[in-house]
Amino acid sequence: MKKSDIQELRRLIGEENVHDDRPHQLAYSYDATRDHYEPEAVLFPRNEEDVSKVLRYCNERRIPVVPRGAGSGFTGGALPIRGGVVLALERHMNRIKEIDLKNMVAVVEPGVINKELQREVERHGLFYPPDPASQEYSTIGGNVAENAGGMRAAKYGITKDYVMALRAVLPNGEIIRAGKRTIKDVAGYNLAGILVGSEGTLAVITEITLRLLSKPRLTKTVMGVFPTVGEAMNAVYKSLAGGANPVAMEFLDNLTIRAVEEKFHKGLPVDAGAILISDIDGNVEEEIDYQIALLERFFKENGATQFHIARNSREAADIWFARRNASQSITIYGSKKINEDVTVPRSELPRYLEEVERIAQKYRVTIPCFGHTGDGNVHTNVMVDGENREEVERGYKAIEEIFRVTIDLGGTLSGEHGIGLSKAPFMKMAFTEGELELFRRIKAAFDPNNILNPGKMGL
Amino acid sequence: MKKSDIQELRRLIGEENVHDDRPHQLAYSYDATRDHYEPEAVLFPRNEEDVSKVLRYCNERRIPVVPRGAGSGFTGGALPIRGGVVLALERHMNRIKEIDLKNMVAVVEPGVINKELQREVERHGLFYPPDPASQEYSTIGGNVAENAGGMRAAKYGITKDYVMALRAVLPNGEIIRAGKRTIKDVAGYNLAGILVGSEGTLAVITEITLRLLSKPRLTKTVMGVFPTVGEAMNAVYKSLAGGANPVAMEFLDNLTIRAVEEKFHKGLPVDAGAILISDIDGNVEEEIDYQIALLERFFKENGATQFHIARNSREAADIWFARRNASQSITIYGSKKINEDVTVPRSELPRYLEEVERIAQKYRVTIPCFGHTGDGNVHTNVMVDGENREEVERGYKAIEEIFRVTIDLGGTLSGEHGIGLSKAPFMKMAFTEGELELFRRIKAAFDPNNILNPGKMGL
Repeated sequence: MKKSDIQELRRLIGEENVHDDRPHQLAYSYDATRDHYEPEAVLFPRNEEDVSKVLRYCNERRIPVVPRGAGSGFTGGALPIRGGVVLALERHMNRIKEIDLKNMVAVVEPGVINKELQREVERHGLFYPPDPASQEYSTIGGNVAENAGGMRAAKYGITKDYVMALRAVLPNGEIIRAGKRTIKDVAGYNLAGILVGSEGTLAVITEITLRLLSKPRLTKTVMGVFPTVGEAMNAVYKSLAGGANPVAMEFLDNLTIRAVEEKFHKGLPVDAGAILISDIDGNVEEEIDYQIALLERFFKENGATQFHIARNSREAADIWFARRNASQSITIYGSKKINEDVTVPRSELPRYLEEVERIAQKYRVTIPCFGHTGDGNVHTNVMVDGENREEVERGYKAIEEIFRVTIDLGGTLSGEHGIGLSKAPFMKMAFTEGELELFRRIKAAFDPNNILNPGKMGL
Repeated sequence: MKKSDIQELRRLIGEENVHDDRPHQLAYSYDATRDHYEPEAVLFPRNEEDVSKVLRYCNERRIPVVPRGAGSGFTGGALPIRGGVVLALERHMNRIKEIDLKNMVAVVEPGVINKELQREVERHGLFYPPDPASQEYSTIGGNVAENAGGMRAAKYGITKDYVMALRAVLPNGEIIRAGKRTIKDVAGYNLAGILVGSEGTLAVITEITLRLLSKPRLTKTVMGVFPTVGEAMNAVYKSLAGGANPVAMEFLDNLTIRAVEEKFHKGLPVDAGAILISDIDGNVEEEIDYQIALLERFFKENGATQFHIARNSREAADIWFARRNASQSITIYGSKKINEDVTVPRSELPRYLEEVERIAQKYRVTIPCFGHTGDGNVHTNVMVDGENREEVERGYKAIEEIFRVTIDLGGTLSGEHGIGLSKAPFMKMAFTEGELELFRRIKAAFDPNNILNPGKMGL
C-alpha cells in the first residue's frame, strides 16, 4: 500500500476510521492462534456503505482485505498474512438492529457479541441456541464466517441452521442480499448457504438475520460416571439413537478429570474413565422426566456406575464446573496446547478415542480429550512442552496422524474452528484435487482478484 | 445430437439405458407444469459412474443434460428446453443404501421416493420430516434440487435442514463429496449448502445423506374457525411468537372452504372467513396439552369462534380432510389454475391476504388461498377459464402484481417450487443485476460450458 492509498481511504470513510500507526498494526496482528501478521492499515467502517467503498477501492488496487470480528478464532482466519487492510467490524458495526418478535428473528450487524445477542433475545422470552465456547467475546459475524458450533449443537444445530438472511458486500463493492425473513425461500442460489463458513474469503457480511426460538421454560442437568471412555462413548450414541434429545452431551476423559481435580479439588471421580454431562430442556416437567429416564437407562445399560440429577441450579453449576474448567486445567500437562476440534460420526467415537490413545503412546505425548460428544465433536488437545522443540515436533506428528484417523473414520478436519491458516496444510488430505479446484473456482466467482482474506483455507 | 452420440452413449452406459425413440422422447417431455419440451434422448444411468461418463461426454460435446427425478415439479425444472439428454434417475438410482441407526442418518440415491423413505425410517422409530405435497411420488433428489418444503416446516424446517452430505458429479465428470455424517463440518466451502435448491444447474446429485430424528410418540390435531381471514392470520403469528411450536399450521380461506364443501358435503363452516388446522407432536401427553392450551388461548384471543381438539385419529382425519382436498376442490372456480407458492414473513400474512383480495377484484379473477401459514407460505391460486384467453391474461397480470406485493412485503417468489422456467421472468423483480450476475458466475464455476439444465432460473 502507498501513502496515497491511506489518504484515499481516509477520504472515503473518515480520517478517524483509518489507522496505519504501529499500535494499531500490532493490536490487529494477532488472533487466538497467537500467530502474528501485521496489516498495513486498520479500518473501522461505520456501515455497509463504508465497507462497499473500501472494497471497491482495494479491489481496483489489488489490496488484500481481511474482515475481522473479535479476533478470537483458533485457525488464523482473521490474520492479514499478505498485509493490506484489516476491516475491523467490531468497532462501529455492532448494533442489534431489530428483534422482530412477530417473526421471531433478530437482525444484527456483524460486530455484535454472541452472548450479548443471547441475553437480549432471552429478555423477550426468545432463544438463540448457538453457543461457541467464545460466546462471551466472539462476534456473530465471526460465528457466521466460521459457522460456529457449541455445546447445544446435538439438539439445536449450529450457526448455519439459524442464518435466515444475510447482506454482504462483494469485492467489487456490490451489495448483495441472500435469503429472507422466512423459513422457506428457494428463489435463486442459496447464497447464505455458501457464505456461512466461508471464512471471509467470498464477501464481507454486513447484516445477519437470525432465526430465534421460544426459550424452553425448564432445564435440568445430569451426570454419568463411566469406568472406561469406551463405555461412555457407547452411551453417547446409544442414548441419541434411542430417542433421547439432550441439549448438550459433554464429555471429559480421565486425563481431563484428573487435571481439573488437581487444579480445583472438587472431589471429582479421578479413577473414572470418563464423565458425561448432559442438559435437558423442555416446557413441562414430564417431558424432562421422560428424557432423563431415557438417559439414565442408556447410561446404566452402557456401564455407568453413577448417575446424578442436579436438584437445583447450584448443583447443576457444580456438575458443569469440571467441563467449564477443562480447557484451562489441562495446561498442567504441558505449556503448549495443540488444540484440534475434529469431529467423527457419533458411532465412531469409541474407535476414535482408542486411536487417540494409541497415537499418544506412539508419539509419547499427553492428549487429554473433552468436548461435545453429542455431535461427535471431540476437542483433542496434544499437550507438549513449548520449550522442547523435539517434543513440539512429535506433537505435530501426532496431530497429523489424528487427522488421518479422523478422515478414515468418516470425520472432518474441523467441526467448529474452520481451516484458516493452521489447518490449510491438511486440506489435501481431506479433499480431492477436483474438490479443491472447485473451491478455487467458487472463490474466483465471488472474488476474481483474490483480495478477500487471500491465502486462507488452503486455496 | 448426432446419431454417433447416441451410439457412444450406448457404449458408455449400456444399450438398454439409452433411448431416442418417440415414446421415450414424449414420456420425458412433461412435468407438472404441463409444458412440453422433448429431449433428444432419455438416459437411465445405473450408478454414479454412469452419470460421470455421460456428463464428461456431453460436456465435451456441449450437449445439454437435464437431470430428472419424478418430473413432479411445478416450475419446469426438469424440462429439456434446449434438447439434449434427460438423465432419468428414478429408474435405477432409487435405492435406500443405508439407514444408519447409530448416527441417525439415511443414505439414499436420488431416485428414492420421499414417502418411501419416510415409511422405511419410521419402521425403525425414526423420522424424516420434510413432506412436500408431492411426497407420494416426488424423489429425494428432486426434493434436494428444489429444496422442497411441506407442511411440517414451521417446526421442522425444510429439505436443506436435513441434508448432511451429498455426492455429486460435476459437468466435467469429476465426482465431488460435500459434507459428512456429522452435524458439525466446517472444512471447506459448504458445497451442500449451495447444491441444495440449485435446480439441477450446478451438478448431478448421486447420493444424499439425510439427518433423521427420533419419531415423536404422540400427535394431536386441532382446528380453529375464524370469522375473518385477518383474524386467522393474526392468530398464526401470535401463536408462534407466543411460544407455540406446532408441527403444522395450515389454513384455508373462505373460497377454499366453500369449494371443499360444495364438492364433498362435509358440513364445513361455509360462512367462516378462515380455518386453521394444526398438528402438535411430542413424547408426553403433558407437553401436547401445554401446546394445545397455548394454541387455544391465542386462537380465541384472536377471534376464533370455535376450537376443536380431535379425540382420536378418525376425528383428526376428518379435520385434515378439508385441507387435503383443497387443491382439487378449488377447480370449481376455473378450469385453469395458476398456482403460486409465494411466502411472506408471518407477520405480513394479514396484509398479504388483504392485497390478494384487492388484486382479485382488480383483475376480476377468483383467488382461493390455502397453505402452510406457519411458515408464511401461502398457496395462492388464480383460477381462470382456460378457454378464455382474455381471462387467462388477466390471471397472469394478477400473478405479476401478487409477486410485486410479495417482494414489497419482504417475501419470496418461491417458498417451495423453485424458479425453473415458469418463474424465470420474475427474477429481475426479486434480484438486482449484481445478484443475478453473481448467480451466473457461480453457475459458470460449476458448469463453464452451461450444459447442465441450461436456461433455467432466469440465468
